[in-house]
Amino acid sequence: MKTIVEKVAVSFSYPVVFTRSVFDPDNRTLLDTLTKKYATSQKSRVLVVVDAGLVKATKGLLQQIETYFSIYDKRLSLVHPPLTVTGGEAVKTDFDELWKVIDLIQETHLDRHGFVVVVGGGAVQDMTGFAASIAHRGLRIVRIPTTVLSQDDAGIGVKNGMDYAGCKNFLGTFAPPFAVINDSEFLKTLKDEAWISGVAEAFKVAIIKDKAFFNGLCKHAAAIRKRDLAVMEQVVYRTAELHLKHIMTSGDPFETGSARPLDFGHWAAHRMESMSGYRLTHGFAVSVGICLDSTYAFLKGLISDAERQAILKGMSECGLPVWSPLLTRKDKNGNLEILAGLDQFREHLGGDLCVTLPAPIGARLELHSMDHAVIEEAIALLKPKSRKGKSE
Amino acid sequence: MKTIVEKVAVSFSYPVVFTRSVFDPDNRTLLDTLTKKYATSQKSRVLVVVDAGLVKATKGLLQQIETYFSIYDKRLSLVHPPLTVTGGEAVKTDFDELWKVIDLIQETHLDRHGFVVVVGGGAVQDMTGFAASIAHRGLRIVRIPTTVLSQDDAGIGVKNGMDYAGCKNFLGTFAPPFAVINDSEFLKTLKDEAWISGVAEAFKVAIIKDKAFFNGLCKHAAAIRKRDLAVMEQVVYRTAELHLKHIMTSGDPFETGSARPLDFGHWAAHRMESMSGYRLTHGFAVSVGICLDSTYAFLKGLISDAERQAILKGMSECGLPVWSPLLTRKDKNGNLEILAGLDQFREHLGGDLCVTLPAPIGARLELHSMDHAVIEEAIALLKPKSRKGKSE
Repeated sequence: MKTIVEKVAVSFSYPVVFTRSVFDPDNRTLLDTLTKKYATSQKSRVLVVVDAGLVKATKGLLQQIETYFSIYDKRLSLVHPPLTVTGGEAVKTDFDELWKVIDLIQETHLDRHGFVVVVGGGAVQDMTGFAASIAHRGLRIVRIPTTVLSQDDAGIGVKNGMDYAGCKNFLGTFAPPFAVINDSEFLKTLKDEAWISGVAEAFKVAIIKDKAFFNGLCKHAAAIRKRDLAVMEQVVYRTAELHLKHIMTSGDPFETGSARPLDFGHWAAHRMESMSGYRLTHGFAVSVGICLDSTYAFLKGLISDAERQAILKGMSECGLPVWSPLLTRKDKNGNLEILAGLDQFREHLGGDLCVTLPAPIGARLELHSMDHAVIEEAIALLKPKSRKGKSE
Repeated sequence: MKTIVEKVAVSFSYPVVFTRSVFDPDNRTLLDTLTKKYATSQKSRVLVVVDAGLVKATKGLLQQIETYFSIYDKRLSLVHPPLTVTGGEAVKTDFDELWKVIDLIQETHLDRHGFVVVVGGGAVQDMTGFAASIAHRGLRIVRIPTTVLSQDDAGIGVKNGMDYAGCKNFLGTFAPPFAVINDSEFLKTLKDEAWISGVAEAFKVAIIKDKAFFNGLCKHAAAIRKRDLAVMEQVVYRTAELHLKHIMTSGDPFETGSARPLDFGHWAAHRMESMSGYRLTHGFAVSVGICLDSTYAFLKGLISDAERQAILKGMSECGLPVWSPLLTRKDKNGNLEILAGLDQFREHLGGDLCVTLPAPIGARLELHSMDHAVIEEAIALLKPKSRKGKSE
């Protein structure tokens, strides 16, 4: 018996650029992105995929995109008019939309040096990113995320995915993008719920990584709620920065191990999203999940009651939900349905359960099991006493 | 405008083990592979996928596999009886087979620490590897390739794929396996054509990388043809070693650039496979492609006529074809159909064309264009004068 040990090291590097008005011809960010690394003298060939929700909310967007490419047509070639795909979580179960993107890549003969530019929210990023990552084993993906959630978290990392058989992100790949461009002007098009829901991910990283940032979020809660764009730009930048730093320094960007310290609040969030048939948005589910796990952390002595109250108050003042009646829903055997989320989360991570809690705010602790009785106690403590639950 | 530059470094390491009788309970290679890195005290959960062609050719194989897992059932858990899938290139266009694997992964709740063991030829490795690489963004894949071609080339690297819309490997991922186990006993089950066709890849790497190995192949051509297993084990080992060394040292294992120095002879091979409707096997197509490009190299003064003759003689004595009538087939405009393979190959690589030629045997040169008139001259020189072409 003989053995050869194969070692493969792969390095990826991509810029995350923060700008305004990306399709304004005077803004050369996209042009530079699409041309700077292109090794040959050929034009960069580009397919643009756009979120239908964004097209509806932004007058003249498709025309703007075509104009941008026609102005720079000596260096860029749009291989097809921009393709519009369904927006929102629905697109992640719609395999017809996935094949539409794949077929267009094939028909336009985009090769591995060709670009797919994706303009839209996290779900459209996930679906299109998956399609582009498996065509020719991976084209160059340029993400232009257009929601708070996708600009500060989901759209800037290395993952994509489709939902399948009732399992969120069951199919997907790790595929670092070629570049990410965050354009804050798009945030103006968001409805209030979409504007605020991405702030849950800001609280998530702040609570376990950066106490000063957490204090800032609490201090500016009213401005955030009143849609102050300058404040939101700072929130998005710092949240994105903390997420990117984590991916870079975790030592396991493709998640072959079990640790996922940035998933604070997510075991319950994933479960509630599924329990609600995805009517509860990811951001709002994460918000409630953070409040639940913060209460658990308080009961376990990891944070003080004052810290727990500050978390609930700060999130609430931003307009984020701190409670969902899904937390008390029971199955036919009388068990809290939320508890099944722990085992589903373990399967999602692979291997062992790993839950991250603040200990105290700004620092964190990883647990490999949770106490069902204490979760029930946390739910009882979190439950509003004198009014009905405000979300779901 | 602000920019954060994200850097992600990912390291993969996997053993390629050469053994015999992998499912003999006394052989602990597979047991050790499936248990050594498992972080928890849980049993390793395993789905086994087997090539139908191999099941037919190997009496009692499925029972052997079940017995192996039942003997080690304290540490291994077979989540389902072994799944049999279609063998040969046909499986790479059969998306029902792909979904069968994905659905079984989902139904058996395999997580990211779960294993998919694939036993079969290169096509089954490619299809199953793709399925396992996109479920939960990548399970642990243990490859047990069972043909010469998959043991010395296709089955030991980091790629997988499905054919789509007439384009070979249009869909796929780069997904380093968890481990590869090459069991030479399986080679006994091969028909003569499958036995010999994988030797084309041995000539490919020998001619551009290792003159001593090339001389050895020529010297042992008769033994190879007469199915000497001990000689074949050495051929497979050295070819695998050269392929692995290339992946490790190329600096671009996920092929973001254009260089692919180990694709010698492949531009014409891919084209001939497609022209034949995949009736011409990959190995035989590569063999003819090598002879064509060696003749081109001779006409360009990169190798001597004696070297060109030695290549043709060595391959021919092993039983590999040196000519195909596809090389002279013309389209309705009177153009040689093979020539379209150059542009298809460029698209396959992405970016620029890159063709590798011997210069001289044991060393290599990369070209970024080929001269159509010289290709036609090479075809004329290669064409058998006094007999019909021996293969199609």
